[in-house]
Formats: sequence, structure tokens, C-alpha cells
Amino acid sequence: METTKYKRGEHPNSRNNLNFHSGRPHAYQEPKKQRYLSVTETGWEQVQRLAQELGCSGVSDLLEKIARGEILVEKQNG
Amino acid sequence: METTKYKRGEHPNSRNNLNFHSGRPHAYQEPKKQRYLSVTETGWEQVQRLAQELGCSGVSDLLEKIARGEILVEKQNG
Repeated sequence: METTKYKRGEHPNSRNNLNFHSGRPHAYQEPKKQRYLSVTETGWEQVQRLAQELGCSGVSDLLEKIARGEILVEKQNG
Repeated sequence: METTKYKRGEHPNSRNNLNFHSGRPHAYQEPKKQRYLSVTETGWEQVQRLAQELGCSGVSDLLEKIARGEILVEKQNG
């Protein structure tokens, strides 16, 4: 009897069983990706505080809302 | 003759030769730290564009300036 060898997790039946992204629904109809920033400690704390004050769940959410115009940004004196 | 063994790079003379942070000066008198965010592709592109429009060198800089009140954030309609 011939058996086709599949690697672990690559058998078609196995793949069909996978329910991709079964967790929390995407907040913005799009998957998120990891981003790397470098920010000072002072800056980071302050921006986290601001994010909370503006009703965001965190800095990532603050950026999403800025991007979508739900939160406006403008230059001081300009 | 007795010789003390130091690991690579740990000999006192070696350490004295090190010029800590000899590179670009800190922009905000404080070292930066890596931060990890997760943001959608759309959000990220938009926020990078906004950062540029506001004269920031990038999203990290945008956050520093928001933190320092050089760029103001406010909720749309409120």
C-alpha cells in the first residue's frame, strides 16, 4: 500500500481542520503587524498616558486612530 | 608569573578603552528603548505619511513630539 508522506501539519485534512484566525476579530478588518519603534522612557510613558486619556487601548490603538482621522494631530503653533 | 584571566572584552584596560555611546548624540537627552507595537498596514502607512507631513523623521519621532507637546493630539469632535 502506498502512503504519501506529509510533514507534520501539512496533511490536507489537517490543514482543512485549521480555522485561521479563530480568535478575537480584527479591530480594523485587517491583520496587524509587529512594528518596532525606539522611544525614550519619558516619551513612552507620556504617550501611553495620552493614549488612555483619549480612550485608546494603548499606543498601537492611538496610532490606528490617528491614521484613521479619529484622533487629530497638529503642530503646536502651526 | 601569575596572570589573571579575563574573558574576552572584560579586561579593565579593554573596558577603559570603551567610549560608551560615541555615536550620534541623544535627541532627547535620554537613551531610547525598543518598543513593540502592532498596527495594520493601512494604519502604519498613513501614520508614516502624517509623521513626514509634520516634519518628523519617523513614527518614533512623532511619538516623542506628541509626548512633549510639540505636536498636539485631540479627539475628532471633542
